[in-house]
Amino acid sequence: MSKKIVFKELVSIEEAVNILRNVYKPSPPPIREVPIKHAYGKVLAEDIISDIDVPPYTRSIRDGYAVRYEDVIEAREDNPIKLRVVGSLEAGSNERLSISSGEAIKISTGAPIPSGANSVVMDEYVVQQGEYIYVYKKSRPGEWIQFAGSDVRRGEIVYHAGTILGSRELGVIGGLGVDKIKIYDARPASYISTGDELRRPGEELKYGSLYDVNLYSITSLLEEDGLKVTDLGIARDNIESFYNKINKGLRDSEIVVLSGSTSVGGKDLLFEAISLFKDAKILFYGIKIKPGKPTIAAMIGDKLIIGLPGFPVSALMIYLKIFSDVIRDVNMLPPRKFTSLEASSGYYFRSIIGVRQLYPVYLKRIGSKIYFYPIKTESGAIATLSHSDGFIEIPEDTLYVNKGDIYTVNLFGGYIRPSDIINLTSHSIALDKILSLFRRRYRYMIKSIYVGSTGALIGVREGYNDFGGIHLRDEKGNYNIRYLEDYNVENAVLYHGFYRRIGFIVRRGNPKKIKSFKDLIRDDIKFINRIGGSGIRVYIEHMIKRLSNDLGIDVDEIRNKINGYTIEAKTHSAIVNAVESGLYDVGIATELSTVGSQVDFIPLDWERYDFLFNKESIESKAINDLIEFLKSDEVKELLNNLRGIKVDSNYMKILFD
Amino acid sequence: MSKKIVFKELVSIEEAVNILRNVYKPSPPPIREVPIKHAYGKVLAEDIISDIDVPPYTRSIRDGYAVRYEDVIEAREDNPIKLRVVGSLEAGSNERLSISSGEAIKISTGAPIPSGANSVVMDEYVVQQGEYIYVYKKSRPGEWIQFAGSDVRRGEIVYHAGTILGSRELGVIGGLGVDKIKIYDARPASYISTGDELRRPGEELKYGSLYDVNLYSITSLLEEDGLKVTDLGIARDNIESFYNKINKGLRDSEIVVLSGSTSVGGKDLLFEAISLFKDAKILFYGIKIKPGKPTIAAMIGDKLIIGLPGFPVSALMIYLKIFSDVIRDVNMLPPRKFTSLEASSGYYFRSIIGVRQLYPVYLKRIGSKIYFYPIKTESGAIATLSHSDGFIEIPEDTLYVNKGDIYTVNLFGGYIRPSDIINLTSHSIALDKILSLFRRRYRYMIKSIYVGSTGALIGVREGYNDFGGIHLRDEKGNYNIRYLEDYNVENAVLYHGFYRRIGFIVRRGNPKKIKSFKDLIRDDIKFINRIGGSGIRVYIEHMIKRLSNDLGIDVDEIRNKINGYTIEAKTHSAIVNAVESGLYDVGIATELSTVGSQVDFIPLDWERYDFLFNKESIESKAINDLIEFLKSDEVKELLNNLRGIKVDSNYMKILFD
Repeated sequence: MSKKIVFKELVSIEEAVNILRNVYKPSPPPIREVPIKHAYGKVLAEDIISDIDVPPYTRSIRDGYAVRYEDVIEAREDNPIKLRVVGSLEAGSNERLSISSGEAIKISTGAPIPSGANSVVMDEYVVQQGEYIYVYKKSRPGEWIQFAGSDVRRGEIVYHAGTILGSRELGVIGGLGVDKIKIYDARPASYISTGDELRRPGEELKYGSLYDVNLYSITSLLEEDGLKVTDLGIARDNIESFYNKINKGLRDSEIVVLSGSTSVGGKDLLFEAISLFKDAKILFYGIKIKPGKPTIAAMIGDKLIIGLPGFPVSALMIYLKIFSDVIRDVNMLPPRKFTSLEASSGYYFRSIIGVRQLYPVYLKRIGSKIYFYPIKTESGAIATLSHSDGFIEIPEDTLYVNKGDIYTVNLFGGYIRPSDIINLTSHSIALDKILSLFRRRYRYMIKSIYVGSTGALIGVREGYNDFGGIHLRDEKGNYNIRYLEDYNVENAVLYHGFYRRIGFIVRRGNPKKIKSFKDLIRDDIKFINRIGGSGIRVYIEHMIKRLSNDLGIDVDEIRNKINGYTIEAKTHSAIVNAVESGLYDVGIATELSTVGSQVDFIPLDWERYDFLFNKESIESKAINDLIEFLKSDEVKELLNNLRGIKVDSNYMKILFD
Repeated sequence: MSKKIVFKELVSIEEAVNILRNVYKPSPPPIREVPIKHAYGKVLAEDIISDIDVPPYTRSIRDGYAVRYEDVIEAREDNPIKLRVVGSLEAGSNERLSISSGEAIKISTGAPIPSGANSVVMDEYVVQQGEYIYVYKKSRPGEWIQFAGSDVRRGEIVYHAGTILGSRELGVIGGLGVDKIKIYDARPASYISTGDELRRPGEELKYGSLYDVNLYSITSLLEEDGLKVTDLGIARDNIESFYNKINKGLRDSEIVVLSGSTSVGGKDLLFEAISLFKDAKILFYGIKIKPGKPTIAAMIGDKLIIGLPGFPVSALMIYLKIFSDVIRDVNMLPPRKFTSLEASSGYYFRSIIGVRQLYPVYLKRIGSKIYFYPIKTESGAIATLSHSDGFIEIPEDTLYVNKGDIYTVNLFGGYIRPSDIINLTSHSIALDKILSLFRRRYRYMIKSIYVGSTGALIGVREGYNDFGGIHLRDEKGNYNIRYLEDYNVENAVLYHGFYRRIGFIVRRGNPKKIKSFKDLIRDDIKFINRIGGSGIRVYIEHMIKRLSNDLGIDVDEIRNKINGYTIEAKTHSAIVNAVESGLYDVGIATELSTVGSQVDFIPLDWERYDFLFNKESIESKAINDLIEFLKSDEVKELLNNLRGIKVDSNYMKILFD
């Protein structure tokens, strides 16, 4: 049996963070002076002390006449006071005028108050005749005058170093006359992926290799945290390759980040490569949290080396939980807690007793409350990543996360928004188009995940799905309602949807001459199936049973005979694409999915695609708006204009409530 | 009397937005193809459809042996099954091997499953001897195998056009092998400030001119909304200047934004300049909201002209309320509602009945709840802007905003965070230093506003201030407690603070030979006062009274005789700076504020600076942490090491509770 890597002295999250904070104390990031217009989003590296009074001069804030208030103290409507106008001042004038008793100066908003004047009378209360005015209202000392320095006084500290510069801060600093400021520049870092099978996006993919997901997800988080990242490519599965990449990273940058399982043939290549550096010091190696085991941190000289897990969501969770705030701190950025959210669990799910876990979740907003739902990570690296909005930390002693439990959700980056609508659904291009229009019109955030009709229905029953399209035909040829009963779905409303034509998708010209289901068991036919639980899959299973009856062959044997029965596509488009490319000979999909493609469509049947709503969700504004939108003439027209789609007079009637 | 501008047919906010949406329908923003690493934060301009299956090949997810499960169905610990090893596959290998019954292939995690195999047995359950293995455990079909396309299927739409590209999205797209994507590029816009008195930051400031605050605050919001802004400088107060600037804006860009009061001598220059363009069409001119009156929107040809108010906070509120989402929409960005907050009013304040208002507020976080407090706009353009976090809309029929009322707070840009601690305080450089260290250590957001001791005390009483430093001496020479009683402050805890030496700040060498308060009434002395309500001002008033007694001159007459009595500085540093620069001869400030400056300090007295906490705030974690921090030896040492500061054994004793 192969040697197992021993993770000695696993540390807790808190220990890991403490070790990092105590050991990793680099000098501050480089400081750079930039024009203000390039400072947006950067961190201020100096105190901003006002060099001027604001306003810099005492000014009028109304159009009118600058006067001495003592002169007009008796002014009333029936007792106008006559003053001689000795000049006028416009905004922007730099004339230094003055008045004495009995005099006034015509003044515009923004113009400097002449010396001797201590009040402004508004135009409305003055009549000018030649070089004299008559003032019909008394004024108070200081009226309509803004004194120099009353807004900001010279010498005042307006912002401290460390302030993040948004639009408000840049406006204020500009208003002090400053046009260049010192900011903290990004600190150089390097990123290395690991693994013989990895290829960089854009490279050619050979059999047995796959693309690196972590490159862009990790490097953009690193850049959010104030680093400037150089991509050093992929370290191959040998110590020399690891050593050389790390060595290059150390020469060019201050932080080297790697990701990927680095255990090969019982050896941990990253650990061994780091150990080759004379001044290397392992800070920790393995963290007592799921999924923290392969995490490693080391110092080589004064530079930090970080090794993250390979599974993309694990890499993000570990980076955000252990490293992100330490790096933000040395780069003078505020911690991520300011972008994390408090949310309630929208669903009951199990944790593992005795194990602290980081658990990916997605978010949903209902009114001003935010809920989270667990993500199953089995579906693969990309699906898990693309559905996750962030993660929670579940303590060791927690066996269950109950509905309503409040957790802090750490977001996967700065552009994550909770969804307004969760749409676990059977895939339909027509629904895609409707939702696309709805999203554009109402600007709701909608998370669509294609789980098939059965997944949609279970999601509604369990309360984590707001709505989905379903098209499950029973043996009598009826749709959906029997399945709601069979699955005990009670908290739902089913609306009659549209009809869509389904058929065989074959290559242009039907070279393999496929006519019926019987052709699928031919040896020369490569079929591509739909995922279990999808309406079309249910249809296919019906047809297999019928074929089994017709031919007198066992159902399982028929399944076995279908070459490609176990190859499952999640969407109709995937079927069309797979056939068009020549990888498969036939699949079953909707006519609509063939639009724009070079395949032939052999009609089989019309099926009904209904809309299933969670009863509780119907009370939310977003779902309400969606239902109204679905009912609109605009949507009906859109549907009737799509190839292979039609609606009848039952459209949007309630079938089940 | 001058002609007033008539705002015809004022429109409501909703009408204004509707008009804009109906009329302004430009073509989509330019589309550009960029490498993924430059796409962070951009909007996707194409659907991302997977060109590959992910994983692209069926692969092992464990180290072990690829087998036919039918061969090992009987394997148990006491019944090992013997298989012949016919090859081995590493991750990254592109060899296409196969096995028959009775055979196995050694396989690494990530390597492709050989044809004929349908299960993987982990290393742990296998012993290899020469070219044979003994399998000690049965395996299920598909065990430890990840099928090609099980994560993402070729043809699947992974992201729709319109998705904002964060780290998650870029990781997913990269994982599909895509390295270049189409994004929406920024749409060109122009910005023009208006007013003869304005200068651009960086320019020289003459008497009668002041700096433009709006330039950077507005242009950075425009850039947040997907525009690329060219600054066209300042239009001067004549129609020709307006016309020429707008004309240039129309040539270079699609949107022209102006700000500033454009009413000069009874004419609205902007309105008149727009009207000179033959194809101009005014969309609306004046909005029925405070402060929306000077707002204007027009189309010239297919280009949009926006005129915003001049007062910086008004300009931001009107822009965000009326224009921002319309512009975001045509630039394919989601509306700002996703970054606005629901918050409860932390304070009772009045609105104006019959008037719809946009009201600037600042935000405070307590636990997971967020509160807002009104901002008084009288203190000036910059102070108002720098203290505001966002604004609420108060309906026409609302006379009061009650404590606890919930409003949506629209934030002033993307980098605003609610404060954890509100610190309305008397200014102290020592406290500045303590809070600076505390902020760095604990990473709380702290909003410090210098309002003087009295302002701090009233803020605590009214509940909108968490804590502040106060140093109010009564006539018996005691500090603070009598003032708490006089002001009916009951919901507060007063901690004994530190002592600080105050004195006259004079120019180096004391050229005017100032020795005592009596010198302040000399004709040749220019004094600079502190703001009303500050502890030092209270001290100054005591000394004036004492002088009045000594000299037998009326108090008001003494005040009148002090040249500069009405010039009020908000901070100690401002006093030092004003004297150092030669603008004034003398002021009163702390000794600490002279550190690093070229002034002399003439000691007058030691005063006590205490910490006043709102009792309710003490329950929050942030304030609790602050109190513990103030009590720490680190802070005591810091204080004792500052010039002119000392603490005694009473430090941090509770004086009032």
